[in-house]
Amino acid sequence: MKYPVGVKHNTTSTTIYSNRGMSLESDLNITNEYYRITDKAIIYKKPTPITIVKVDYKSRQDAIIKEAYFKTPSTTDYNGVYRGKYIDFEAKETRNKSFFPLANIHPHQIKHLKEISAHGGIGFLIIRFSSLNLTYFLESSKLISFIETQKRKSIPLSYFKENGYVIHDNYNPRLDYLKIVDQLYFGGN
Amino acid sequence: MKYPVGVKHNTTSTTIYSNRGMSLESDLNITNEYYRITDKAIIYKKPTPITIVKVDYKSRQDAIIKEAYFKTPSTTDYNGVYRGKYIDFEAKETRNKSFFPLANIHPHQIKHLKEISAHGGIGFLIIRFSSLNLTYFLESSKLISFIETQKRKSIPLSYFKENGYVIHDNYNPRLDYLKIVDQLYFGGN
Repeated sequence: MKYPVGVKHNTTSTTIYSNRGMSLESDLNITNEYYRITDKAIIYKKPTPITIVKVDYKSRQDAIIKEAYFKTPSTTDYNGVYRGKYIDFEAKETRNKSFFPLANIHPHQIKHLKEISAHGGIGFLIIRFSSLNLTYFLESSKLISFIETQKRKSIPLSYFKENGYVIHDNYNPRLDYLKIVDQLYFGGN
Repeated sequence: MKYPVGVKHNTTSTTIYSNRGMSLESDLNITNEYYRITDKAIIYKKPTPITIVKVDYKSRQDAIIKEAYFKTPSTTDYNGVYRGKYIDFEAKETRNKSFFPLANIHPHQIKHLKEISAHGGIGFLIIRFSSLNLTYFLESSKLISFIETQKRKSIPLSYFKENGYVIHDNYNPRLDYLKIVDQLYFGGN
């Protein structure tokens, strides 16, 4: 599990709007907040799943968790509703310049995205190649067809170029991924 | 915040199928698992939101959270997809025999349920009167109209009787709340 690296971003709620070059997660949190404020969509990041072992209760209000562990997630990190449709996605960044290692996505999450499609939801990945400053939108169907037809343990950048869509970096919304959802699922309107 | 009471149930993943009189949360976890296994719906409980302050890294694999706090949730606890629709609900139990105290639901969660309806999602409450062994399904529109027209800080049982739907306790699925969703949103089919 790669949780430790992301802990700070997962748990602080401070967002610094002027700071460029932030993590993908921060960019998505700002984007989702913008979507909510402008009443475009209701999409949230799920809390980090943990197993709590020990809690100290000073009082009802002031419980302190003293021992807990990170848990492997069963689902993706983001979900919500847009134009009446169920939206579900996982977001990951890699510093690699030529491929995205599949080890970054848990088998449970891939299974989950498959199930979402089968139930009429809209599932996708948002993958950032941070060294290249490139963020891609990849439909879950393209992820699954890659996994089912290739034996590689990573998806090459060329696959994203051919099958994905670049999400451009903007001011507001920061990463307008719903624009791509509009094109793919709502005839561009 | 009333988290401490629920901590055990929120975090252990053990489910004892034969035990009756379990918590509403356990019943819903079993129900949702049944829905997933039978490929009826993909609905999960979100992890408990916490703020992590201190983590010890013995190794990459063995991070231990040493200090963390429970956070007020911004959304409801359960969401997912059913028959292509976005499903979102909050579940609470009370030992009170004649009313459900609204203090059990955060204002954020009420606002959230309102937004879900506005975006075409299906939002509701599942409220268990544990002393009466009665579990009700209440559409979010009925919750909101109560709050907007009444000044009471609790919803009387009679309101559930008139505006809600009893969810009967079964073997499998334990609490078939989607049956009520079928009746209300899919013409009973």
